[in-house]
Formats: sequence, C-alpha cells, structure tokens
Amino acid sequence: MNRQFVKVLSHVRPQHRSGVLCPKLFGVSRSPASPPTYPSAPASVRRFTTSSLLRSGSAASNPQMAFPCLDAVELRTKQIQSRSTLNGPEPSYTTGAHKSFTSKSPILLDYGGILQGFTIAYETWGELNADKSNVILLHTGLSASSHAKSNPDNPRPGWWEKFIGPGLALDTDRFFVICTNVLGGCYGSTGPSSIDPADGERYATRFPILTMEDMVSAQFRLLDELGVEKLYASVGASMGGMQSLAAGVLFPERVGSIVSISGCARSHPYSIAMRYTQRQVLMADPNWNRGFYYGQVPPHIGMKLARQIATITYRSGPEWEQRFGRQRADPSRPPALCPDFLIETYLDHAGEKFCLEYDANSLLYISKAMDLFDLGAVNREELRKLRQRNRYKLEPTHVQSTGVEEANQCSLSLPSQPYTEQPREDTPASKLSANQTDLVAGLAPMGDIPTLVLGVTSDILFPSWQQREVAETLKKTGNKKVTYVELGEDVSLFGHDSFLLDVQNIGGSVKRFLYG
Amino acid sequence: MNRQFVKVLSHVRPQHRSGVLCPKLFGVSRSPASPPTYPSAPASVRRFTTSSLLRSGSAASNPQMAFPCLDAVELRTKQIQSRSTLNGPEPSYTTGAHKSFTSKSPILLDYGGILQGFTIAYETWGELNADKSNVILLHTGLSASSHAKSNPDNPRPGWWEKFIGPGLALDTDRFFVICTNVLGGCYGSTGPSSIDPADGERYATRFPILTMEDMVSAQFRLLDELGVEKLYASVGASMGGMQSLAAGVLFPERVGSIVSISGCARSHPYSIAMRYTQRQVLMADPNWNRGFYYGQVPPHIGMKLARQIATITYRSGPEWEQRFGRQRADPSRPPALCPDFLIETYLDHAGEKFCLEYDANSLLYISKAMDLFDLGAVNREELRKLRQRNRYKLEPTHVQSTGVEEANQCSLSLPSQPYTEQPREDTPASKLSANQTDLVAGLAPMGDIPTLVLGVTSDILFPSWQQREVAETLKKTGNKKVTYVELGEDVSLFGHDSFLLDVQNIGGSVKRFLYG
Repeated sequence: MNRQFVKVLSHVRPQHRSGVLCPKLFGVSRSPASPPTYPSAPASVRRFTTSSLLRSGSAASNPQMAFPCLDAVELRTKQIQSRSTLNGPEPSYTTGAHKSFTSKSPILLDYGGILQGFTIAYETWGELNADKSNVILLHTGLSASSHAKSNPDNPRPGWWEKFIGPGLALDTDRFFVICTNVLGGCYGSTGPSSIDPADGERYATRFPILTMEDMVSAQFRLLDELGVEKLYASVGASMGGMQSLAAGVLFPERVGSIVSISGCARSHPYSIAMRYTQRQVLMADPNWNRGFYYGQVPPHIGMKLARQIATITYRSGPEWEQRFGRQRADPSRPPALCPDFLIETYLDHAGEKFCLEYDANSLLYISKAMDLFDLGAVNREELRKLRQRNRYKLEPTHVQSTGVEEANQCSLSLPSQPYTEQPREDTPASKLSANQTDLVAGLAPMGDIPTLVLGVTSDILFPSWQQREVAETLKKTGNKKVTYVELGEDVSLFGHDSFLLDVQNIGGSVKRFLYG
Repeated sequence: MNRQFVKVLSHVRPQHRSGVLCPKLFGVSRSPASPPTYPSAPASVRRFTTSSLLRSGSAASNPQMAFPCLDAVELRTKQIQSRSTLNGPEPSYTTGAHKSFTSKSPILLDYGGILQGFTIAYETWGELNADKSNVILLHTGLSASSHAKSNPDNPRPGWWEKFIGPGLALDTDRFFVICTNVLGGCYGSTGPSSIDPADGERYATRFPILTMEDMVSAQFRLLDELGVEKLYASVGASMGGMQSLAAGVLFPERVGSIVSISGCARSHPYSIAMRYTQRQVLMADPNWNRGFYYGQVPPHIGMKLARQIATITYRSGPEWEQRFGRQRADPSRPPALCPDFLIETYLDHAGEKFCLEYDANSLLYISKAMDLFDLGAVNREELRKLRQRNRYKLEPTHVQSTGVEEANQCSLSLPSQPYTEQPREDTPASKLSANQTDLVAGLAPMGDIPTLVLGVTSDILFPSWQQREVAETLKKTGNKKVTYVELGEDVSLFGHDSFLLDVQNIGGSVKRFLYG
C-alpha cells in the first residue's frame, strides 16, 4: 500500500472542477502540495446539465443539482480518447530509470499459471560487500515501484526516502539495499500489461493468478543472478510485511533476519472484504472491458473509486477527526453530492492522483494475491501438491498446447451440475485452535530466524492483533529471537500509513533491530 | 440501516451464476435462506467470453479468466430492458399496505428546498389511549420502510418484528407504536421518485437536499394530524438513533423520553467517508444518469456495489473471522476475481438482495442527510438563520418563480474566481474543547428528558465513543436522567447490526427503560 504522495496530502480543498488532467499521463509536472487548477469543461460536456435543466423546465419546485465531479471524469474520458487517437495507446507506467533482470527460463506459479520468461525491475542503494553478506531485500506495498529512494539516475524522492540512506533505518553505509517491483506490477516487472511472448499480445486477464510466494520466488531468481546466497535481512511493510515473512518460510536458509511491519501471516475477512469491494468497483467500470482496455481508454473512473475506498483503510477515524472533523470545503455553498466535506475532498484527491498512475489489471491481480495469502501449513501443503501436479507444464513439449486446453476448461462459467455445499466445521473454538496450530506449523521454517514484528494499534486494514498473532506464533515455533513492537494510539494515529510517515518510531525500531 | 433480510443471511454459497433475477422486480417469491438458482446466460451475453478467447488465440500462455459475476449483472440489464419495453417503467418500491398522511401545506426544508405538499407513509401497532399519551414514535434506519412489524394488512415480518408486540420491548399492550417511512424515502413517503406537483415530472435530482431535522419535522406534522400532543417516547436505532435525538432537540416539550440506539449527535469523518464512497460508486453507474433513470434501467450495478460497501460497515471483523474465516466458497476451483471467499459471496448476496429493492436517489439523499447531521449549537443556529432567510419561499406569491432563478444559480459548477482557502483553526485541543461546548449547548433543550443511550463496542459505523459522547454531553446539560448501556465484545460481535439481532440485550434494555 505504499503511496509516494502520501506525505504531501494535507487538507486539500476542492476546486469546483470540471476537467481533470492526470499529471503523469499528460506529462504536466506539478507539486501535489498545491491544489491543481482545472480547465473549463467544453460545451459538449456541460451539455448534460443544460439539457437536464431544459427537461426539468422552469416550473420545477426546486433546482436541478449540479454534478461537477461527474463532469470532470467525463471530460477526462474525452481527453484520453482524443489523445489516444493522436498520440497512440495508453500511458506507460513507470517511475523512472531502474535496473532490469530478465529470466529466460519459465516460472511455474502456485496456482498453475506459467510465464515463459519474466522481467523484474529493481533498484539498489549502498555497496555490495565482497562476500555479498550485507544485502537487505526490501519488499514493497501493493502499488509501489522499485523506487524506494532517490538516486543519481532518478532523483525523484522514493516511497521510503527518509528510511534509506547513510545512518538511516536501512543504513546504506553498511547495507546493500535491493528493492524490486513485484511480479504482476506495472513499473517495469512482468505483469498483466506485459506482452505474452506466446502470441505477442498483452496478457490482460489472460495473466495467471499469482501469490505472494510467487512474487518472492521471482525476487530470489534475481538474487541468484546477483550471486547473493543469503540475505542479511528481508524487510517490508504492508504487503511487503507479508512478503518478508514469506521469504523466511520459502527460503529459511537464505534469510538472515526478518522485519515485518504492519503485515500479517494470513489475510483476514475484513481486509479481504475491503479489497473485494475495490476490485468489484473497478471491474464494473465499462472501460475495464474484462481487462482488455490497452490501447483504449483505461478504467480511470473505476480506479478512482477503488482508490477512494482503499484510502479509507489507510488512516484512522481518530486521525480524521482531528484533521478534518466535520469541516466542509466551502460552507458558503449548499450541500452537494459531489465532494463537499473536507474528508470527501481528501478522498477525491487521493483517487485523482492514482487513477492513471497504476495499471488496473495489476491492481486486481496483486490485490487478489494479498487475499490468497496464508502461511498456514494446510495452505502451504495444498499449494505444494498443486505445484507437483502442474510441474509437467515446465516440460518443453507441453508448452505449445497449454493455451487451448485450459482456456476452454476455465471459461466454462456454467457447470452442468449445480453447486453443492462443502462440509463446514461449525465449532468456532476448536476451529480457532486448529487455526493456531496450523499457523505454528506453517511458520516453523522460521524457527531460528531473528524477527522484528511491528504493529500499529490504530491500523484498521492490518489490525495489530494480526501482528501480535505473527509474533506469538513465531514464539510457539520455538523461535527465541522474536521482537514485537506496537505503536499505541498515543504514539501514532496514522493507522496503516504509519510505516510511510513515522521515521522516528518505525524507522528507529528497524534500525535498532538491524544493528542488534 | 435497517435491513429486513439481515437475519436470514447466513453463509450463502455462490452459484456459478450467470443471470440474476431480482425477486421483487420479477415477482418471484423465494426464501433468502435457500441459495437461488440462476438461469443460463443467453448466447448474446456469453459472447464476450467467447470473443475474448478468439482474440487471445490458441497460442496464449494461460487461459482467459471467466467473469460470471459480470455476465450476471449484464444479463440483468438486458432483462430489465426487455421488461421495460413490455410492461412499463421501473419497479414500484413498496413493502405492502400502509396508512398515508398527506400534508397539503408546503414544507420549507433546512437548506432552502421546498415541497408544495408531501405524503408520509406510516403504520401503527397497539391502541391509542383516550388522552393520547401512550404514543411511541419509532424512527427507522436509512433504507427501512414503515413496516417494522407484521400486521393483518401486511403479514410479512417487519424489520423489528421481535421487538414490537405484547410484552416485547415496545409493548403493544401498553403503547401505541407509530413507524413512518422517512421523508425522502421510497416506501410511500414523498421522495426523489415522487412526482413534483409543479410540473408533473419526477423530482429525481431536482429533489431538494434534506436533513434529519426535516424528516422529524414531517413526522411531527403527522402527529399533529393524529392529535398527538406529546410522545411517550421517541425511539430509534442507527439513523433512527439520530432522529430520536433530533426530535428531543426540535420539540423538547413534545417528547416524554428518548431511546437512541447505535446513533450519534453528529456524524464523524469515518462514517461520512464510508457513505461518500457508496454514493460515488452509485453515481458512477452510467444508468444513474444524474438521477434521471425513472422509466429506464435503474442503476442496479451501482446500487449493488454501494450495498456491498455498506454491508462491510454493518458487522465486525471479529464476527466475520468466526463465521467465514478464510473459507473459500469452493476450494476445488481456481481462485477468481468474481466472488470466491465466503465473505465475498456474503457481500455479493447482500448487494443482489438490495439492488432493486430501494430507490437509488432516496439512498443518495438520505445518506447525505446523515452526513449533514450535527446537533451542535453552531450548526443549529446556522440552519435557523438559513430558514429565516428562506421563509419568503412559503409566501404564495413566490412559489411560481422559484425554479428558474435558483436552477441557473445552482448549476453553475464553474465559478469565475478560483476557490480560495477558508481560514482554518489548527489547534486540535482547543478545537476539541470547543466542539464539546458546542454539543452541550446544542443538546441543552433535552436537559430534562429521560434518555437511554445504547452503544455496541464492536460497531465500526457508529463507534461506541459516539454514544458515550451523547450520554456524557447530556449529563453536562444538567440532565439527571441519562442511562448509558454499552454491549461489550463479550456480549455482541454483531457490530452495528446488533440492534436488529439482539432481542435480549437491546430489546431488554429498551423495555426496562420504558417501564422505568
């Protein structure tokens, strides 16, 4: 869930906007701290309001409401349409210069998908020492790129700018820090917007379902390439906090220590629900077109809506209470269904910033991968068996026939037999206990790895009980080197976003742990 | 936020659905407890998947994903379209037989809107006594009708079925209970789907912004009609908990006692944010058409999405953890972007149930009215001044000219001057203190009214600190008859929905208070 702009978003007040140009898409550079100014809507866009007025007639009891927020997104659609015709296809998602690693050998994914080859975008900071023992692998949040920190090739501030550098949490005087764009992402790594080498077309929703563990496996292929046998530490927050744990479970002998911040060992229903609604909202945008929007207008409206929902989960109610309260953006104007209260303009702004900055299909696949995350032993074993069954797909002889066979099989949305209920355990107490045992067994490979688990009490997306669960489970595996730190509400009201904002407490704890 | 079906939703498992008929719209009676069966998608709807496959070609590395949930809503659109052509316009929103009160005299709303006349649908239970002193006015949640309890004219169970009746929480052996459909609703009371008498067309988004206080004022016009001078009690939960307080502030001399369950004295930013995203998602549905969908396909997709988001706020994470955990609906099938985990099928089902059951514009206006709710003295005074300025609209001479003048004024979405920042107080401590003082002054009229305030610790939509705030504020007004009850997480994990489910603890507390 990293967001590079998160620090500059303060209390943005709305324009009575009619047209919104995405800064990235149109190459306009502007500081996010200063509210943008918007051009006037052309007559064609304003027409709706006019015709509604004509329709309602002069005799109506009350005036027709105005919807400038809808005018704005409709104008953007028109602008993108005209731009597509003139200048070619959809935006190129990038945060700037980065290194690339391309694997020519195929990768078999946990749920049976296959990529004939793949590319991982990455950046590094600090110096690799002679025995390559000072490497920190930094895992990102959902939508972040490899650009965690500015560097000469790309001086733009990174998403963990103040946490990486000489003397900082990830001390580049001592460590060689690697950050990748995850598999499935859109910032240089192979994802749904990449070309499928099998037919020369973009994957779109022909991209296979992937898991956190798949992403981590791809990262370790990069480490192989760099000749890094063992990490000094696997570090990450949010989705990265999941991955830092997954690295320890998948490659315990290659991970020296682990830092997991505001992450979890398995997603819980509330987080799944919040991500589910984001995906549904995005998929309902007609421009999403089942994922085949490349070269056309991308689902910027669905992306904006999804981001607004996501933004609710990043902070906390008490923080908003202090910051926005019940202030309206302009109390002199009548209440409106478009952004009106300051909290609404804040959400609107977050959606505007993001709607063309990130690939919609990447969001769907990575968000789903987070839901599927479960380091419990039962799930790990199921995935192992599934991989076993699918290993044949790595045989060169198989590769050509994959597409047809499975496509027909999977697109059958109407089974001939009605769905029947699966047996369900109805004893919560024993189930909970079984759940705990399952997770202890699942995390057993990490039994010897020193681990720092960091939680934030005000986090509603990855509630702190999940981090406590990780720490307690690790202790139950016999791990004697578990450190648990929780930032209470007196320390941080920034909720899930604390990992991006709290240099002193988050950064400080990480630094102490890595030096310990 | 009342939902009649809330009790029957257990752990519904999904069909691999392709077409979804709304039971209400199509007059199909089915028990919500048994999963529905869906007809096959016609070839025209399946075509997309087929053409995608053709596009992706047989050489693709992986199969195209299937999206049965999108097929289903697209099929519904087609079904409604064909039905519209054959059988006339949109569904008629009703929960059955009810009484009606129609005011011929106009009502001026808080924000300056005017209704030349209005109708309030209502139902009653029990017997009105001779001096009309045994009346309980029951306020509903956002989307509920007047049908709180079955009766001979409408034997269908009501939304508070087990709370109303002889010997129950609202004891009909003793009390005469009145429940109305709120002004702005769609179950018989005047709302956006009603005809504007000024021009014979539906109001749609020419309906004026309204407030909780407007709704309560309309209810008291009904009490006038019935000759009820003073209520024995004003009772409500959720939005009804706001209104039960508003009644005390607006008409302190006419309210004998107050019960406010899971309500608040002013909406806070987190609740506003959650409702805001619901409205935005709904308004983004192209079928919403700026509110002018009557006679056409209603925004059933936006309504479904909005309801899914809303449903997240009705329960609690811990309850879902116990009930759904990480169970997938059918573990034998590959992960999907359409409903997959049980929690997702639960949300999907809630959206399906609601999407054609309620008028989209009513949802928007009433949801917005909840955001605007603030019983603080500053807001009350501003509304008083605004009403003063708008009183001229009640003059018969004015009525004809209202429409044009204001329509032009309000639909200017592009001011000639850019928006400038309003001065903002940046001292949270003093602001918080001022906020408290403001609310004490606002609730002062209730200083003598015995009041029961009920909260539920696991509620995330109306968190219990808001109910504590109400109780503490009332005490500061000098009120000596304030009872505060909070159901802890050991008592209820049902969150906001507890008021619909917990007959013993919610119902029991209400009964004890009313008999006290």
